[in-house]
Amino acid sequence: MPTILGQNQYGKAENRVVKITRDGDTHHIKDLNVSVALSGDMDDVHYSGSNANVLPTDTTKNTVFAFAKEHGIESAEQFGIHLARHFVSSQEPIHRARIRIEEYAWERIATSDGNSRFIGADEVKHSFARKGQETRVSQITYDGENWEVISGLKDLTVMNSTNSEFWGYVKDKYTTLKEAYDRILATDVSARWRYNWTSDEQRMPNWEKSYEQARKHMLQAFAETYSLSLQQTLYQMGSRIINSRSEIDEIRFSLPNNHHFLVDLEPFGLKNDNEVYFAADRPYGLIEATVLRDGVEPKIPVDMTNL
Amino acid sequence: MPTILGQNQYGKAENRVVKITRDGDTHHIKDLNVSVALSGDMDDVHYSGSNANVLPTDTTKNTVFAFAKEHGIESAEQFGIHLARHFVSSQEPIHRARIRIEEYAWERIATSDGNSRFIGADEVKHSFARKGQETRVSQITYDGENWEVISGLKDLTVMNSTNSEFWGYVKDKYTTLKEAYDRILATDVSARWRYNWTSDEQRMPNWEKSYEQARKHMLQAFAETYSLSLQQTLYQMGSRIINSRSEIDEIRFSLPNNHHFLVDLEPFGLKNDNEVYFAADRPYGLIEATVLRDGVEPKIPVDMTNL
Amino acid sequence: MPTILGQNQYGKAENRVVKITRDGDTHHIKDLNVSVALSGDMDDVHYSGSNANVLPTDTTKNTVFAFAKEHGIESAEQFGIHLARHFVSSQEPIHRARIRIEEYAWERIATSDGNSRFIGADEVKHSFARKGQETRVSQITYDGENWEVISGLKDLTVMNSTNSEFWGYVKDKYTTLKEAYDRILATDVSARWRYNWTSDEQRMPNWEKSYEQARKHMLQAFAETYSLSLQQTLYQMGSRIINSRSEIDEIRFSLPNNHHFLVDLEPFGLKNDNEVYFAADRPYGLIEATVLRDGVEPKIPVDMTNL
Amino acid sequence: MPTILGQNQYGKAENRVVKITRDGDTHHIKDLNVSVALSGDMDDVHYSGSNANVLPTDTTKNTVFAFAKEHGIESAEQFGIHLARHFVSSQEPIHRARIRIEEYAWERIATSDGNSRFIGADEVKHSFARKGQETRVSQITYDGENWEVISGLKDLTVMNSTNSEFWGYVKDKYTTLKEAYDRILATDVSARWRYNWTSDEQRMPNWEKSYEQARKHMLQAFAETYSLSLQQTLYQMGSRIINSRSEIDEIRFSLPNNHHFLVDLEPFGLKNDNEVYFAADRPYGLIEATVLRDGVEPKIPVDMTNL
Repeated sequence: MPTILGQNQYGKAENRVVKITRDGDTHHIKDLNVSVALSGDMDDVHYSGSNANVLPTDTTKNTVFAFAKEHGIESAEQFGIHLARHFVSSQEPIHRARIRIEEYAWERIATSDGNSRFIGADEVKHSFARKGQETRVSQITYDGENWEVISGLKDLTVMNSTNSEFWGYVKDKYTTLKEAYDRILATDVSARWRYNWTSDEQRMPNWEKSYEQARKHMLQAFAETYSLSLQQTLYQMGSRIINSRSEIDEIRFSLPNNHHFLVDLEPFGLKNDNEVYFAADRPYGLIEATVLRDGVEPKIPVDMTNL
Repeated sequence: MPTILGQNQYGKAENRVVKITRDGDTHHIKDLNVSVALSGDMDDVHYSGSNANVLPTDTTKNTVFAFAKEHGIESAEQFGIHLARHFVSSQEPIHRARIRIEEYAWERIATSDGNSRFIGADEVKHSFARKGQETRVSQITYDGENWEVISGLKDLTVMNSTNSEFWGYVKDKYTTLKEAYDRILATDVSARWRYNWTSDEQRMPNWEKSYEQARKHMLQAFAETYSLSLQQTLYQMGSRIINSRSEIDEIRFSLPNNHHFLVDLEPFGLKNDNEVYFAADRPYGLIEATVLRDGVEPKIPVDMTNL
Repeated sequence: MPTILGQNQYGKAENRVVKITRDGDTHHIKDLNVSVALSGDMDDVHYSGSNANVLPTDTTKNTVFAFAKEHGIESAEQFGIHLARHFVSSQEPIHRARIRIEEYAWERIATSDGNSRFIGADEVKHSFARKGQETRVSQITYDGENWEVISGLKDLTVMNSTNSEFWGYVKDKYTTLKEAYDRILATDVSARWRYNWTSDEQRMPNWEKSYEQARKHMLQAFAETYSLSLQQTLYQMGSRIINSRSEIDEIRFSLPNNHHFLVDLEPFGLKNDNEVYFAADRPYGLIEATVLRDGVEPKIPVDMTNL
Repeated sequence: MPTILGQNQYGKAENRVVKITRDGDTHHIKDLNVSVALSGDMDDVHYSGSNANVLPTDTTKNTVFAFAKEHGIESAEQFGIHLARHFVSSQEPIHRARIRIEEYAWERIATSDGNSRFIGADEVKHSFARKGQETRVSQITYDGENWEVISGLKDLTVMNSTNSEFWGYVKDKYTTLKEAYDRILATDVSARWRYNWTSDEQRMPNWEKSYEQARKHMLQAFAETYSLSLQQTLYQMGSRIINSRSEIDEIRFSLPNNHHFLVDLEPFGLKNDNEVYFAADRPYGLIEATVLRDGVEPKIPVDMTNL
């Protein structure tokens, strides 16, 4: 046979699980999109169609929902760890499990001032609006020995309306861009950071707190960096996280440069003093880079921030 | 000629205009997506291709950007009023202008505690994150005499994790649904409300305050209604707005019923006590209705909430 | 009570039904997305939450799937007629049913030349690729007496690479556009045509043939019109259909002008002789109009082509 | 400094270039979406914001459009090769260029039978409809010495309405799936194949013909495989390409299992003899694997088919 099978994986993608936890009248929501990918002794199913080693993707789906009940959802990362451990340890032919999770945040709806004629104000502890800002993401991989946890976020749109310049660049025969000394800097942050936690025995990070803190440091670095290039801002965002969070060793960013072009209003006898912009769709600059703790090996794939 | 021309309109759609207003170091953002539609004496351009009455869509685009400078953007509604008045009053063949606007909200990024080594904390008054929740919408129509302003929002996702039932419905031979006495009620609110302001002479509503208040009342009604049907919740949301805001006479909703199905965990020996749900994509229930101030004629088109 | 209920409707949206019909070894696919909207005596469910008149949306979903078996799917229109008639005639409180259908076309995969070592070539009568071009749409409305059928298509992207001009238009102080004597004309056709068939008693159109012919005439008119404006092309597309198909009385179009801007290559010492274009996303011109058989009343809503 | 810079790249993404080539009255379209990513000596721009080594992304955009004129667009692959060679050979600090291209296919609109009263039928050689089926993709990478060309397609939706089974799989405590002996097999093909051409000196493949042939073999293998698992079908699709095309050494697939669930019609007294299906959105099975020519090293990244 002149062809052979290479890397392969399978599972159920995008299981939309919502878990309500009741703390008396007060409810808590976890809203996840969970994708399972399993690898192992799977030659036969590809070569001959024998499913003798195949746990159906339907079963992996059932497991996701059952585990939401059996283990609860403390955090996306902890939930993924439960799932990955289960698949690898319970099925001989499965050698590796990778769980990808998107999490959507919700916030409580502020209720009216108590004189509601509908229901008592104290009961309004179970009404939520989806926050809508970024999507939190996580990928948990387990091979039976070691863990790799990569978390992050995507679609967090941010803008600095000043404190950004761009000049001193290479000019060649195709260069027409004018240098800018005060421009808008806007991007949709996609970031993935890798935890240095790799084994059950070590103490696990506090995943929820780590996420909140990493997000906060990243946003502050974005706001506080006087930017000479989006690359410089990216590096500041990454190094701020690594310097602030000892549990994180590596971070990769994909930052589109959401161009805001100053509109030429001179034909209409108007001066545009950095006030009116056209927000363009395509094309856009795309800046991607990894920032690492010194001495650490990079492991986040180059394209991971686009997935 | 056996065919004739009916209603027609044209213009430039989806002009993405961003306006920065500087209040000293503190910047303010207005981020709009503006679509222009003009009607009038346009038979010739359809019948013979003569553009003698046609103001190019490119010009309508230029006007949007120029007006952002000339008039500023106090609110989406006020901006649309400036534009609609201009097109109708400055071009003889144009008898009607309809401006549709989407507005994206931004919030300031909280900065670090002042000891930033990058730039002074007091300068961080120009960094923003896009809120991401609902999109605010408005449609302003002017025919040279009267104004119609319809505002609202879309894509505001909300959920009550309890206080919702559904039973006592019609059963026919195709009915298999089981009655529910405690279910999740979740929807993506799309709402359009019509203002009773129709002429320049009258005092205009405070568009920004009206939006904030209408949104608040609607959300509170959603949270506070013990629901026997999504229709009942819809009606409460609408009547709460009309009862609270004298400037609004009519509101139309399109509310998908975002089904959260309780997962059957019994095959796995687990009891699902209203805890674990599968969030389904399609199909979804779709509830649409208009709520009116008594005695008022409805004017919002039936499908407007889907645009 | 100072508020009242206006127009309202409800039902299950986007039921994705796929029907396989077996003609011996040869299979046929109908792939539909069906949305049901019902209206009638529904005050109580809005005012008090009583569901006594409410056929659940879940039941309307079941009916869609059951009817695919009971009646088959001869055409989207015929299927919608079966559904609409059923809801109105079987449920006293329901006075009006509106069925919206999207249909996705498939084509057979050409098989290899008979020497397949896998299965016999004569068995390969059940393999399909989704065509992917336009989506066919239909809306069937029934109020117990009269029928209204509006069909059409959306997302059919077409382009003329020449035979299009644009000049002789109005210039005002915001006009900067240069006249064009040879430009690309490109659009995504969204069209809805209304049939003059309104009652069971009359002979029904052949829906499948009518669609194919209307589409063909429309495309040919697009290709064959030397265009001085997109409005002119639109009118030709519409009148060609009405002149060719006696069963169609009215058609509405929404045609975005998909701008292809000639790139300025002079800074690089190159001449761009109508060769290299930048295809822009937003903003875009948007041309919308109705074409009618002379003497006919227009009934297609202005925004229907955007739904 | 405790943090360092890892892999990084930048460039202008999604340049939408349309090229019209005139062969007398007959026009030809190439419609591409081109993304440029450059790497090299870029430490300074990240650490200090110095742009001294940075060719602006705006310049990379200009280059794409200028090259469409200077070199034409013979194929996406050949166009990418011109661009990659240019960036690496003309800019000292740039060591590696990666060009990603999406290509959209168009077909000619069949014209009416010559008696057009608008323009002569022989002139209608410049009217096109976008095919809409798959998107053709290619990635060209050059490091100054070696080339890597990975091509393929995405979003090609296919279905076998029979000749597919699924049984004999692993059962555990979470398994509820029933075995299937005649099911629909449907997927959206995303495939990437790697060419063994790596240097200028060797004779280049005929990129257009290779694409057409690879696509054809893949579709035929899909249609002709009697499938016991989607994995088996995947492997047949891959090995058919490699066995048929000597220029291709490796192929990776990502195949969602687009579930079509047989609807239970028994509650309505109907028998569903593999006729009526519910086409589900999420979750979906996801089968991913690489097929290789024996003896060849795999180089296509695991996630590349999702980009």
